[in-house]
Amino acid sequence: MASRQPSTPPVPVGDRSPAYPKAVEALITEFASLPGIGRRTAERLAFHMLKAPAQEALALAGAIEAVKRTIRHCDRCWSLCDGPLCDLCADPGRDRATVLVVEQPKDLIALEQTGMYRGLYHVLMGRLSPLDDVGPDELTIPSLLDRLDHPDHNPGGVAVREVILGLNPTLEGDGTALHLAEELRARAVAVSRLARGLPSGSQLEYANKAVLADAITGRQKV
Amino acid sequence: MASRQPSTPPVPVGDRSPAYPKAVEALITEFASLPGIGRRTAERLAFHMLKAPAQEALALAGAIEAVKRTIRHCDRCWSLCDGPLCDLCADPGRDRATVLVVEQPKDLIALEQTGMYRGLYHVLMGRLSPLDDVGPDELTIPSLLDRLDHPDHNPGGVAVREVILGLNPTLEGDGTALHLAEELRARAVAVSRLARGLPSGSQLEYANKAVLADAITGRQKV
Repeated sequence: MASRQPSTPPVPVGDRSPAYPKAVEALITEFASLPGIGRRTAERLAFHMLKAPAQEALALAGAIEAVKRTIRHCDRCWSLCDGPLCDLCADPGRDRATVLVVEQPKDLIALEQTGMYRGLYHVLMGRLSPLDDVGPDELTIPSLLDRLDHPDHNPGGVAVREVILGLNPTLEGDGTALHLAEELRARAVAVSRLARGLPSGSQLEYANKAVLADAITGRQKV
Repeated sequence: MASRQPSTPPVPVGDRSPAYPKAVEALITEFASLPGIGRRTAERLAFHMLKAPAQEALALAGAIEAVKRTIRHCDRCWSLCDGPLCDLCADPGRDRATVLVVEQPKDLIALEQTGMYRGLYHVLMGRLSPLDDVGPDELTIPSLLDRLDHPDHNPGGVAVREVILGLNPTLEGDGTALHLAEELRARAVAVSRLARGLPSGSQLEYANKAVLADAITGRQKV
């Protein structure tokens, strides 16, 4: 594979280093800058674009432009939307006194798909991560506290009575939940977090220690 | 994970199925249509686009458009270029009587980077694969034969004297080489193929049987 490296060739013939045409190189570089896409995959994607009918390739370009042009964050909950308020915040049928705090818009979608929750959300846009220089002000925590402190900044002007912490059950998610719980203690809101225990459909013998410990600690009355 | 499926929720609350805004869904669908990109990766890429500065995201869109607008195949060798002839075919310093046949533009780049070859190329744009309905006419084989039969269709009007088969050492590559060798037998050109044997830098004890067999059969005088 060493011969594929753009190092000095053993017997240089021309003075021009061989390469793809400029536009192809630029496309490979762009694909390779995406997360999880290496140079080899980027080449494969670029060649797919070259082979694909123009309409198909331009559909991707158009979709990127449309997203950058139309998508923004909801003024209240920071979820994704194409107007000032997201559908959930704008819906008078939702329980506006309850706010479920999640890390990412993806988490909101996953929870909504259960159909079990009828309150509002607040998307933090990440989690606290001191090692990556992500502190409370890099997240939407100030905006959450603002919703709690000023009911007119919550949809419908309704005062929030309960905050449910729906962060990922990871080290950083737990750290963020802890920080939020401390911030919320001084405020007149009930604070809860999503239940932790055995994942439904799993088998006890395969559950790891942390899961079993959660299941024991959080055992529920029947 | 069952709760993440968009199946009927156990207790439906609203009548609207929760989803990302339309533009985000469209972008996820476009990314997911790329080879080797599943729905989950497509979501990750779409969110990267959402988070990235507009300039960065639009650079990818622009690169796709530029490729579809400017890149075409060389009239002679089918390599990628942005004019009627590629740099190699247009270069009078190359040995135009020798043509190295490869499957893909990528192979051409890899060979060029060795700096060991100074002839021209011909890119087949694939390999024969009867199971996938890829016959000689789906490749650029007619165009190669045309270059051999009509010297004025070869760059500089030079008659081709040697064809080097540089197909991948795979079942389909070998089949394609065999077909080409038969086509070329009737023509007044020397036909050779790239040497096969032990990969430089490897260790004999780890080489597989096919590699060792090639190395024995193709042993070279010293």
